[in-house]
Amino acid sequence: MHVMIIGAGGMVGAKLAARLATDGQLGEKPIEKATLVDIAAPAAPSGAPFAVEALASDLSAQGSGAALVAARPDVIFHLAAIVSGEAETDFEKGYRVNLDGTRSLFDAVQQAGDQYVPRIVFTSSIGVFGAPFPEAIPDDFQLTPLTSYGTQKAIGELLLADYTRRGFMDGIGIRLPTISVRPGKPNKAASGFFSNIIREPLAGKEAILPVSEETRHWHASPRSAVGFLLHAATIDGDAVGPRRNLTMPGISVTVGEQIEALRKIAGDNVVKRIRHEPDEMIMRIVKGWPQRFAPDRAVALGFQAEKSFEENIRVHIEDELDGQFVA
Amino acid sequence: MHVMIIGAGGMVGAKLAARLATDGQLGEKPIEKATLVDIAAPAAPSGAPFAVEALASDLSAQGSGAALVAARPDVIFHLAAIVSGEAETDFEKGYRVNLDGTRSLFDAVQQAGDQYVPRIVFTSSIGVFGAPFPEAIPDDFQLTPLTSYGTQKAIGELLLADYTRRGFMDGIGIRLPTISVRPGKPNKAASGFFSNIIREPLAGKEAILPVSEETRHWHASPRSAVGFLLHAATIDGDAVGPRRNLTMPGISVTVGEQIEALRKIAGDNVVKRIRHEPDEMIMRIVKGWPQRFAPDRAVALGFQAEKSFEENIRVHIEDELDGQFVA
Repeated sequence: MHVMIIGAGGMVGAKLAARLATDGQLGEKPIEKATLVDIAAPAAPSGAPFAVEALASDLSAQGSGAALVAARPDVIFHLAAIVSGEAETDFEKGYRVNLDGTRSLFDAVQQAGDQYVPRIVFTSSIGVFGAPFPEAIPDDFQLTPLTSYGTQKAIGELLLADYTRRGFMDGIGIRLPTISVRPGKPNKAASGFFSNIIREPLAGKEAILPVSEETRHWHASPRSAVGFLLHAATIDGDAVGPRRNLTMPGISVTVGEQIEALRKIAGDNVVKRIRHEPDEMIMRIVKGWPQRFAPDRAVALGFQAEKSFEENIRVHIEDELDGQFVA
Repeated sequence: MHVMIIGAGGMVGAKLAARLATDGQLGEKPIEKATLVDIAAPAAPSGAPFAVEALASDLSAQGSGAALVAARPDVIFHLAAIVSGEAETDFEKGYRVNLDGTRSLFDAVQQAGDQYVPRIVFTSSIGVFGAPFPEAIPDDFQLTPLTSYGTQKAIGELLLADYTRRGFMDGIGIRLPTISVRPGKPNKAASGFFSNIIREPLAGKEAILPVSEETRHWHASPRSAVGFLLHAATIDGDAVGPRRNLTMPGISVTVGEQIEALRKIAGDNVVKRIRHEPDEMIMRIVKGWPQRFAPDRAVALGFQAEKSFEENIRVHIEDELDGQFVA
């Protein structure tokens, strides 16, 4: 089969490509070719037992959707997006890439015409939800995003469901939790601290915690995110039914619980590298975010995440640090 | 003030224009000018105490949004849409008019730039909801439309909320119930029978009932629809908050209850003009439609509909039949 990853240059996209290279197959079907797409041509994973083509493509540019589907990939993972912060500061760019880009991909599939109905896995986000919330957000809760990014993802979900209902494609939308522990350098994302306070201390560096330890949020590891994508690519569409967008499972923990999990695994000395430095703006932003979900549908459909935040930390140490940390 | 009605050629749009002509004001502010827009220039209401301009404009055509907002109307009622059935049979046209047309209007307002922030009242629909439902659909229920029309309206709602949140416009979206009793001729809309079975017998004509008398649905009169629009145009936006889209109140009745209300008002002879002729296709379509809402937010905000279906019938007899019917 031919697999395409749009947004293969991002953290999750690259991990997905690496996992496909290791597995050599998707849902027990051997992969013959993978096409990796991003705004700049992404790096190919090492040791892939199949052909890899890396393409630079701006999905929001005229005709790029049609060019991407010309080779009729069997499965398309659509992870490409302008991130939350940039979609908020650059209104026009966010809508152009996140809404028009997604629609142009779906339209290209719809217009392909030769009974081409690929499985398309679309990464949505818990950012489609906006406060106030019930204590645990149920699967049938309304989408009232409080960011342009969340709005664009919610619109992508609606298009995916309608184009699937009409038989133009076979879409599954998955709302990713905040990915923790995210590897790499600290970034300016308002959510960055959720990972920073684990990753930096384990690397012997100081991390800043800008919110109170009571702050509760919804997390899954990068390894789980890849697992969600693979499961969404192979799941029986009939079992999903017409409601094609699913809130992914995760673990609901407070920052204090995150820190206690770190202490248990790595000790007091590591925890001491976390410096409390309250930031009013970040606290205000985070207050509007979901804290807990009841993702019953996704769980019933076999999607799995970590059961404790300690697991998230262990996954990080195994997958990113070769089992080692700075005690 | 300058009021614009886009979709003023439709049944509700024309009634709204007539009501503005009668009132001469909106929210106690005198109207100086009304601009009536539709795909063909709509008829002006008689006796308006203000200037009326009638325009033909295709909202989905390049630049038409900008042309419409050039005169900076203070309030814009956006009722224009390809109806449900046509949006389903003509995929491209439905998206072009209902999605791109709405977005081009909102973008034109966003790009106006001179601190122009009009109140925009957008007519959405209970078609944004798709079965299965709880017994009464609460205000925080998810939007999972099962038609392209419902999808396009749901996307319009999301855009309206985001553009309002960002301060580009001051939008209120109202989800209209099925309008009963709809005046005019029987049409091919799957929902047509809800009105046909009342309107036609009152006019001495036979009507066909294609579903069982147990079929339950959510109704409001044309007069209430105009009332919703006027209230949405003048309501305090701060009281509405960031969730800008509201399910309108209505009355939940079965077809049997509709018929009994007709019998009470007009007698057995009129009811005998309803002929039962089950239609499997219509029954299947109607099964996916909402039956009852709990529109608590709209009620708390002062939106009002009929309290019994007898009222809907009386409104029809008063407003459309000069108080007379064929006994």
